[in-house]
Amino acid sequence: MSLTPAAPDGRPAISVGMLGYGFMGKAHSNALKTLPYMFWPDGPQVDLRAIAGRSEVKVSEAATRYGWANYTTDWRDLVNDPEITVFDNVGPDQTHFEPTLAAVKAGKHAICEKPLALTVAEAVELERAAAAAGVKSLTCFNYRFVPAVRLAHDMITNGDLGEIYSATFRYAQDWRTDPTAELGSWAGALSIIGCHAVDQARYLVGEIDSVSALLTNPVTTAERGEPIDTMSALAQLQSGAPVTIAATLVAPGRKNMLGWEINGSKGSLTWDLEHLNLLRVYRRTGGPLDGFADVIVCEENHPLTKAWWPSGHVLGWEHSHINMLAHFLDAVVNDGDIAPHAATFSDGAAAARVAEAITRAAATGTRTTIASVS
Amino acid sequence: MSLTPAAPDGRPAISVGMLGYGFMGKAHSNALKTLPYMFWPDGPQVDLRAIAGRSEVKVSEAATRYGWANYTTDWRDLVNDPEITVFDNVGPDQTHFEPTLAAVKAGKHAICEKPLALTVAEAVELERAAAAAGVKSLTCFNYRFVPAVRLAHDMITNGDLGEIYSATFRYAQDWRTDPTAELGSWAGALSIIGCHAVDQARYLVGEIDSVSALLTNPVTTAERGEPIDTMSALAQLQSGAPVTIAATLVAPGRKNMLGWEINGSKGSLTWDLEHLNLLRVYRRTGGPLDGFADVIVCEENHPLTKAWWPSGHVLGWEHSHINMLAHFLDAVVNDGDIAPHAATFSDGAAAARVAEAITRAAATGTRTTIASVS
Amino acid sequence: MSLTPAAPDGRPAISVGMLGYGFMGKAHSNALKTLPYMFWPDGPQVDLRAIAGRSEVKVSEAATRYGWANYTTDWRDLVNDPEITVFDNVGPDQTHFEPTLAAVKAGKHAICEKPLALTVAEAVELERAAAAAGVKSLTCFNYRFVPAVRLAHDMITNGDLGEIYSATFRYAQDWRTDPTAELGSWAGALSIIGCHAVDQARYLVGEIDSVSALLTNPVTTAERGEPIDTMSALAQLQSGAPVTIAATLVAPGRKNMLGWEINGSKGSLTWDLEHLNLLRVYRRTGGPLDGFADVIVCEENHPLTKAWWPSGHVLGWEHSHINMLAHFLDAVVNDGDIAPHAATFSDGAAAARVAEAITRAAATGTRTTIASVS
Amino acid sequence: MSLTPAAPDGRPAISVGMLGYGFMGKAHSNALKTLPYMFWPDGPQVDLRAIAGRSEVKVSEAATRYGWANYTTDWRDLVNDPEITVFDNVGPDQTHFEPTLAAVKAGKHAICEKPLALTVAEAVELERAAAAAGVKSLTCFNYRFVPAVRLAHDMITNGDLGEIYSATFRYAQDWRTDPTAELGSWAGALSIIGCHAVDQARYLVGEIDSVSALLTNPVTTAERGEPIDTMSALAQLQSGAPVTIAATLVAPGRKNMLGWEINGSKGSLTWDLEHLNLLRVYRRTGGPLDGFADVIVCEENHPLTKAWWPSGHVLGWEHSHINMLAHFLDAVVNDGDIAPHAATFSDGAAAARVAEAITRAAATGTRTTIASVS
Repeated sequence: MSLTPAAPDGRPAISVGMLGYGFMGKAHSNALKTLPYMFWPDGPQVDLRAIAGRSEVKVSEAATRYGWANYTTDWRDLVNDPEITVFDNVGPDQTHFEPTLAAVKAGKHAICEKPLALTVAEAVELERAAAAAGVKSLTCFNYRFVPAVRLAHDMITNGDLGEIYSATFRYAQDWRTDPTAELGSWAGALSIIGCHAVDQARYLVGEIDSVSALLTNPVTTAERGEPIDTMSALAQLQSGAPVTIAATLVAPGRKNMLGWEINGSKGSLTWDLEHLNLLRVYRRTGGPLDGFADVIVCEENHPLTKAWWPSGHVLGWEHSHINMLAHFLDAVVNDGDIAPHAATFSDGAAAARVAEAITRAAATGTRTTIASVS
Repeated sequence: MSLTPAAPDGRPAISVGMLGYGFMGKAHSNALKTLPYMFWPDGPQVDLRAIAGRSEVKVSEAATRYGWANYTTDWRDLVNDPEITVFDNVGPDQTHFEPTLAAVKAGKHAICEKPLALTVAEAVELERAAAAAGVKSLTCFNYRFVPAVRLAHDMITNGDLGEIYSATFRYAQDWRTDPTAELGSWAGALSIIGCHAVDQARYLVGEIDSVSALLTNPVTTAERGEPIDTMSALAQLQSGAPVTIAATLVAPGRKNMLGWEINGSKGSLTWDLEHLNLLRVYRRTGGPLDGFADVIVCEENHPLTKAWWPSGHVLGWEHSHINMLAHFLDAVVNDGDIAPHAATFSDGAAAARVAEAITRAAATGTRTTIASVS
Repeated sequence: MSLTPAAPDGRPAISVGMLGYGFMGKAHSNALKTLPYMFWPDGPQVDLRAIAGRSEVKVSEAATRYGWANYTTDWRDLVNDPEITVFDNVGPDQTHFEPTLAAVKAGKHAICEKPLALTVAEAVELERAAAAAGVKSLTCFNYRFVPAVRLAHDMITNGDLGEIYSATFRYAQDWRTDPTAELGSWAGALSIIGCHAVDQARYLVGEIDSVSALLTNPVTTAERGEPIDTMSALAQLQSGAPVTIAATLVAPGRKNMLGWEINGSKGSLTWDLEHLNLLRVYRRTGGPLDGFADVIVCEENHPLTKAWWPSGHVLGWEHSHINMLAHFLDAVVNDGDIAPHAATFSDGAAAARVAEAITRAAATGTRTTIASVS
Repeated sequence: MSLTPAAPDGRPAISVGMLGYGFMGKAHSNALKTLPYMFWPDGPQVDLRAIAGRSEVKVSEAATRYGWANYTTDWRDLVNDPEITVFDNVGPDQTHFEPTLAAVKAGKHAICEKPLALTVAEAVELERAAAAAGVKSLTCFNYRFVPAVRLAHDMITNGDLGEIYSATFRYAQDWRTDPTAELGSWAGALSIIGCHAVDQARYLVGEIDSVSALLTNPVTTAERGEPIDTMSALAQLQSGAPVTIAATLVAPGRKNMLGWEINGSKGSLTWDLEHLNLLRVYRRTGGPLDGFADVIVCEENHPLTKAWWPSGHVLGWEHSHINMLAHFLDAVVNDGDIAPHAATFSDGAAAARVAEAITRAAATGTRTTIASVS
């Protein structure tokens, strides 16, 4: 026997405390466990310090399952733990505000799942608290970290599309189509997925000036869940360009179809989450071979691919979370910028302002300007 | 030599007079020449009686080219010709109203290219005049006669999609993207192609109650053409369902992309004109093989295919015109119904009302109800 | 009344005599009637002189339907008619040889549907007879005249793909999948559609040196039809590149799926007949936006589009026949070249030699060289 | 502070020793680290006991990076370690045979990357040794563990496709297209990727009886690498059905395009690795809505999805490895079956026999029967 014990990972570890253990708890736990060896050797090491949740049975099981060193049924224990550097809130929507605010005020860098808060006022308070505390903040608009979306962002920023003439963003799912499904406290199309569509619009084509909107609930009564099955908005960017933004939970066959098309003076782009590795690119050259190209965005010369696999070995949904958390933790370690690639609490608040304007516009039938302050 | 002279076609011929010889004159001439032998033996025979146009050089050439027996530079000659049964107006938009009205008043069955007229008032006058004269009328929303669109209509009418929850219609082209192209009197996105998107919506998912809208012209100044490069509308159907309707002439790479998606309680459909033979169908069964099916709509068991080719021998754009004119002329011969499959002048007027509401909504920023009368 | 009679079409008319009135008779009649006004003013005028067929009831009806001036039940009447310049044989396979040979010997320019003949010997005799008579010949490999296929040919000829490394050609249909369908005298997968796959290979990537092959008939017994449901060949080009060539009549869901992929040193192309307006083009630049582009081949800067419609107004199956016959008749009128774009009887004979080699290779299990002479 | 330490994972851990730290070492390390918490609570716990590799610098880094407890530069240390239950060989092809044989003889359950060995004789010796030792074996044909591939397998096994009439399998990449790239000891298209195509064929449509084949090397000389750039085989299954099997490293634009089409009496399936979540399914019902359906295979009612994410949250390439190793380790723990879903050493040997027959067939030009014994 001449096995040699492996040397310890010498990189400084970031200690994370997480609130929540559901679908997003699984996605974030997986990301935090994966990124240290995928983003090697420049990425951070992570210490899964503690996980919090209401049910002791479930949170203790999650701790064992994912390798969190400790658990608690009181999120305040995370906030009060001086060893925790980053607070990651993946709990239900109604638990976003208070714990995140407390964490920020305690000097923790803070991650919060979308939507950042239930009201604009709360979102803005979080934004201001993070600024006041000088901590880094992240609103989990993870789709910014799909490589094809990043490439699109970079192309637009570089001017490859020229002036943006119009765009359309839509997030469609179908799990609410069944009128007998139990929904309970589930939020509606605007909160659950609409905010992703809004954030993709802001990230890719810029700030929204005003919106007209419709909200409908052909399926969901107030007894079953938040009665918003579809959200349809006609927005105008500050640049003047028209943009449609929509979300629906009742589009049969659309399993997880966040998609968009962007048309500029020099070309067009389309993308969707069900085929997330593909960016469809049209560059207007006037030549006979112009056409929308299916670019498989996982090559060496693409963004966000260095950590992963060789040519054409495509990524999945979860990689958006891994890339996002790696970016955030790297910024924490190296005092780097969260923006423009990741969404901060400012972006979370901006999305909340758009959501509020959509709600008001739907109620009034009037084109509604996005509030510049809360 | 024992060649036997062919017997004459014994079917009664409909005598047609056509105004216009441009792109649409070519499409309609081709349709009128093709349909007698394709819709054999039940379809009509056609007598290409006369063609009218302003330029004698051009109209006389068109007459020779397409086999019109006569030509004239004054459309009134068509109206006044007692032998002409059907007046087919494929002239420029501004020549739609007066000649068509005169033809109708002269008792001709009348075909008019879209948009039916430049104003709602004119369109309604045409609608009323046709009704008063007891003639059959056709507004050339030819895309109703793509087999895949007909199949979609039939499915929705049969209830195969259940209740319609939301839909989106968009007609995108890119020929105006070049800011140096000469446009002259060309109309804008609402008139040229937007009306097709509106009509597809009405044909497939029903009447529109109200609209919010944006019109922009990032490229086209008033000197170059009608300054509407993009039209974006957020409509609510009378059923309550939200529908986005858009048209753009400045979407690079979209060559002739009229497309839509319709989501109902039982399934979803998508279609686009660049792949016009395909209807993409999702039927919600809950089974593991549910998925959007690429149905190639040119089989024996599909509508509008009987006249054409065997399995999988796909059709092109022009066939929508041939199918449409065959339907209309057959209705003239057999006193059949134009609606619901073809658009009458009532449908042309309805589309004009929607266009007017879009224009007003864009100007006012207010959700605008479609006028129920002119 | 001031209608002016149209001037006659002053172009010289080519007088055509056609044998056959089935599916291909319909396609060719439509082509001959359409091309004079579509290929205006440079194309030929056509005189539909006479149509021949065995059944007087059917051939006389076809004459009336399509506007053939005369009919006959004896194809020899066409051969003997001094007014007929072009003999167009669209009859059943077994009627290809004798009438076409007689027509050629009578000095007619000759069109023959595929396959040119039932044996290599007959095909070569036709090839030689046409050469001896100095007439122009056309084997109806119509898919060469799909604009996307022509563009591919031009790209390859221009060297845009560099050296060809490999390719695959396949023609798949499904109408024989039903084991109870009556087939009668229908030929098998090699004759009906396989020859198109062979011709596409020869047209696009060059001459075939040798083949290995399999023929199977899981469905069709000799009582029902020619017992060849699938043909699979592994060919080696004279250049050395490997090419698979296949045809099947029992591929459920493949309605008319002639398709191919070609890989060269500089790029790749794919195309299929069910989406015939699209050429998918990959050009290897090494840049981050490389991807297969969906080129809609019906723009002004594309081949074979001049006669047709504006940007994005896509074509259908039948246009391949119209383009092909326009090319042939134009060559007859102007003594132009049939090759390389259209297939002559030499190409028909070459395809027959490949088919014979496939048959022998399947029987022997041995890589079989294509005979250089019959 | 009231954090409670998490309870230890009570599941028995399987101790793994791995040889190799390259691309596959990364993929397998990731899989072994991920599967314990994804396949919770029924899956195995894994003890990353030791990693072996030739370069101490690299293997020690890999140990630290991935969390292997120990490392060694001599693979015999793994074989000799009594604590190691599973030997996982992800080293270069030439290191597959001897270490794997030694591990099996030492009673380790053995995993080996493809190809199992360099010769049929070696592969068969491994197969026999594993049987003699009574250990479980796995040849890493990981694409069997893509959910869409599993669904296809299940459908075919259940008879949903009826009798298989024909199929085509092709694995195309393009990284060898550049004639100046350094390749060194890289194997050719048959070994690197061709074996995956062969295995997919065997897994999905059954055993191969004979092959004809071509091997070409338009780019790669023997100085640069194994001179096989393309492999093309025409196979006949034992059932009689024709199957084409091909692999190429010089198909521009094909980044990782393992794909296939399978046609049976009741329907057809297609799939490709670049869109790995999609199974395209055609079921022949004869109805008007028949069409290839894009089934997104990551729903609750699909195989291999239980461990992962909700509806439409698609998977990537690496998940095939995770699913495969979870399956194997679960079988080790519970003495379950490796076959039919995973490939054993018998399958590795079968693939080697097909590869050998392809090589001989290419050399001789003769249809070559697969050896039933080595």
